[in-house]
Amino acid sequence: MNTAKRAAQLLSTQNIRSLFDSVEAFLFDCDGVIWKGDKLIDGVSDTLDWLRSKGKKLVFVTNNSLKSRIQYAKKFHSLGISVAEDEIFSSSFAAAMYLKVNNFPQEKKVYVIGGEGILEELQIAGFTGLGGPEDGEKRVELKPNSLFEHDKSVGAVVVGIDPHINYYKLQYGTLCIRENPGCLFIATNRDAVGHMTDLQEWPGAGSMVAAMCGSTEREPIVVGKPSTFMMDFLLEKFHINTSKMCMVGDRLDTDILFGQNAGCKTLLVLSGVTTQTTLQDPSNNVQPDYYTSQVSDLLRLLGP
Amino acid sequence: MNTAKRAAQLLSTQNIRSLFDSVEAFLFDCDGVIWKGDKLIDGVSDTLDWLRSKGKKLVFVTNNSLKSRIQYAKKFHSLGISVAEDEIFSSSFAAAMYLKVNNFPQEKKVYVIGGEGILEELQIAGFTGLGGPEDGEKRVELKPNSLFEHDKSVGAVVVGIDPHINYYKLQYGTLCIRENPGCLFIATNRDAVGHMTDLQEWPGAGSMVAAMCGSTEREPIVVGKPSTFMMDFLLEKFHINTSKMCMVGDRLDTDILFGQNAGCKTLLVLSGVTTQTTLQDPSNNVQPDYYTSQVSDLLRLLGP
Repeated sequence: MNTAKRAAQLLSTQNIRSLFDSVEAFLFDCDGVIWKGDKLIDGVSDTLDWLRSKGKKLVFVTNNSLKSRIQYAKKFHSLGISVAEDEIFSSSFAAAMYLKVNNFPQEKKVYVIGGEGILEELQIAGFTGLGGPEDGEKRVELKPNSLFEHDKSVGAVVVGIDPHINYYKLQYGTLCIRENPGCLFIATNRDAVGHMTDLQEWPGAGSMVAAMCGSTEREPIVVGKPSTFMMDFLLEKFHINTSKMCMVGDRLDTDILFGQNAGCKTLLVLSGVTTQTTLQDPSNNVQPDYYTSQVSDLLRLLGP
Repeated sequence: MNTAKRAAQLLSTQNIRSLFDSVEAFLFDCDGVIWKGDKLIDGVSDTLDWLRSKGKKLVFVTNNSLKSRIQYAKKFHSLGISVAEDEIFSSSFAAAMYLKVNNFPQEKKVYVIGGEGILEELQIAGFTGLGGPEDGEKRVELKPNSLFEHDKSVGAVVVGIDPHINYYKLQYGTLCIRENPGCLFIATNRDAVGHMTDLQEWPGAGSMVAAMCGSTEREPIVVGKPSTFMMDFLLEKFHINTSKMCMVGDRLDTDILFGQNAGCKTLLVLSGVTTQTTLQDPSNNVQPDYYTSQVSDLLRLLGP
């Protein structure tokens, strides 16, 4: 018999010191942790500055693939937070890096169902992308003898959240995966929903990825959270043991699981999609080490 | 230990008589069996006439939900085949009948991701449909403080193949399923692909249904093949024991499985998506009773 899973501890003045002292790098999810839609969450800016002043490394890990790292750095700046490009690990970047570390041939092309961010990261990594926003207004012709042509040199299809999903893109990606020998099927992530606006959740990459699974009867390689692919990258870059990292996120099944899979400490913040009720529901079997209401509690509990 | 599964027999002059004499009703899938895209398969018309002349009941069972039964009858006529509306069982009709037999309240509305056929069948059955082709050109606004509103009186979302799938429809259906208490999630079918044109296969209802599963994290009620919901209807209508029916189809995992689930005899035709190689591959575990190249073999082997 297994012993019961240890329940998450509420972060407090009693337990925060041992967490803080043992952690060299804080990994932050963005949506629901740093911001909500286009609004910064209260106290985030001061808390990040204070963490830096205490010598902590900061890393921002996001499953949202709509933006590239360059675009994310701009978003941080526009919200008054100074973040360097190489502190950001987005799933758009992860998709490009997956191809790079797996020696994807330069002469092959990549078809994108998703946003501009994926195409930008592919280009920076030296790959040729097709599709994306450009195919958002394309329509199909369902007439006798009209053949839908696709590029036979496409060797990978990358699927992320796509607010301009259409039948043209589904057919393009499906033909590549089904008919181009060895074509890879890569998902930035499989999140069911995301905060595309501040007031509501919208279908996430999990919806577009599932649509492609439905038509191809194939399962994708997932590069975003909770897959540990991005963590392998982080390890290589920072040379910090994962036991000295703390993953801070608002989602149990992506952020917290991602941190746990990699051996990090984990801190759930309740400023995003997860409520305390969900966390403490008997059906929930993902328990972070700690939980708190928002990122600024770190400063509130420990700061000057 | 189970004995090995009996392999399908090639239909021949030796075995056809026992099949023919024991069957009172032939159930035909349409796409890949009667036609391919908009082209009738050779010899179908003569064979159907001859079967009728021998006193056999004919039923046409299609997972394609784009058309209503009225529209299907017109398609048959345009191809020179005389078929009555009530010989046709489409998944668009099945969706409407599912709501009817389950006493779906008349005052509730039905949101449709799919074609005109579903809306027509809903209307004939006395229900109010929303969405469908009308929402095909609608776009979403992803701006701060813009709220995507949905009708709180929607009590069911019906999802079928939709060549005009977009993010608006995915969000509309997702909000209904996630936020309207007790809202049903009905799939016409889950076919991965379908012959939307004669030259190619295109993403089928399975793709749109999966997209909705991906965003709602819910599983649908399936009313088309291989679910036996339509068969229950057939039974009630024709009062013929299923052991005296023969399901004729081109797909192992929908048509043949549907026939077997219901206790019918099964005949696979190779005029559609399944090849003899697929049928005889050791990994295939759906074995029809018989297989043959096309429907007209019935007439060739038994006819005058």
